[in-house]
Amino acid sequence: MKELKVFSIKKNIYEDNVKVAEETREELRKKEAFMINVMSSPGSGKTTTITATIKALKEEMAIGVIEADVDSDVDARTVQEAGGKAVQMHTDGLCHIDATMARAGVDALEVEDVDLVFLENIGNLICPVSYDTGAMKNIAILSVPEGDDKPLKYPMIFAKVDALLISKMDVMPYFDFDMEKLKERVYALNKDIEIFPLSAKTGEGMEPWTAWLKQQMGRK
Amino acid sequence: MKELKVFSIKKNIYEDNVKVAEETREELRKKEAFMINVMSSPGSGKTTTITATIKALKEEMAIGVIEADVDSDVDARTVQEAGGKAVQMHTDGLCHIDATMARAGVDALEVEDVDLVFLENIGNLICPVSYDTGAMKNIAILSVPEGDDKPLKYPMIFAKVDALLISKMDVMPYFDFDMEKLKERVYALNKDIEIFPLSAKTGEGMEPWTAWLKQQMGRK
Repeated sequence: MKELKVFSIKKNIYEDNVKVAEETREELRKKEAFMINVMSSPGSGKTTTITATIKALKEEMAIGVIEADVDSDVDARTVQEAGGKAVQMHTDGLCHIDATMARAGVDALEVEDVDLVFLENIGNLICPVSYDTGAMKNIAILSVPEGDDKPLKYPMIFAKVDALLISKMDVMPYFDFDMEKLKERVYALNKDIEIFPLSAKTGEGMEPWTAWLKQQMGRK
Repeated sequence: MKELKVFSIKKNIYEDNVKVAEETREELRKKEAFMINVMSSPGSGKTTTITATIKALKEEMAIGVIEADVDSDVDARTVQEAGGKAVQMHTDGLCHIDATMARAGVDALEVEDVDLVFLENIGNLICPVSYDTGAMKNIAILSVPEGDDKPLKYPMIFAKVDALLISKMDVMPYFDFDMEKLKERVYALNKDIEIFPLSAKTGEGMEPWTAWLKQQMGRK
């Protein structure tokens, strides 16, 4: 009897994706650009946090942003106004960025003159988590209004990322958000994660976050 | 030459899905249950809004909730405490509910003694939009902290739903949210949509929303 060929499409897709991602990382290393993949829910403050980070670091390094959106280019314009180099990528309804799309973004951005690249992923806590984009580090942003129960409901993203930014700390008094419970839930999923509560609006907590970022880049 | 068979997997998936959804709607009609599909970002207040709606309407009708989550059962417990009948469905990492999953939820809930069923979708503004679940009406919730620019970035969901609830109106003073701009952007995508600003916390705006809901169900 002929042997039956059994194959998993899902596995092949992810394997090919990792291969492209590895090539992108190698290319970024050659060009001395450090890429960080930024994931969160819609409206949790990805662009605002990236913009505040650009303002804090732009005297020390050149920063580029690959803005991924289902539609619109408002974020890329905001980044440019803050002094960053930006390209806008439309995903035509797709809910994540894979390695090939990220690579197209890196090529479009032309990273030769860029030290730090933010890949601003689609606003989504689920789909982007499964795809290696070629970034050196992955971070998630959770905003205070979203609630401290999110690690219970969307565990994968908290388990995967290297750092978690808790954004919109300035509105903490108006929400029922238990920071200790949140940290407990996050550490239960990922004991090595770094957590940075901050507010891009008031500047609170920006320093520890940018210090960590520079350390990851091998700067002090 | 033999004719080449060209087929679109995507189209077939969606066609099969609509067929199952139609069967579910027929079944719900027979059992006199009205199902409403609730979509939003993570943390925008789906469960809180549904719970407040149950409290407002539970003397007039029996309400059931199908809670879909990647993980956890905190929402189903919250609904039960508010006086609703609830079942919890885990999607094992999937980012949406399709018609087959929704049907499993309807069967698990046992809708014979239920007048109104909320299908609380996965927190995601992109993936759930493409799938007919078998619900009679579709609504989206956008919370004030998410920002008034979301219709520009995630147009599909605003174009599709019958009503949009603007939640967390009580924190409006602490955010830079332009309600007129939001409405303009939403109406540009969907001229027939109903918009209900509300706060489950203070009760503000709950009455017009529940009145609309009853009207859709054929009640007054």
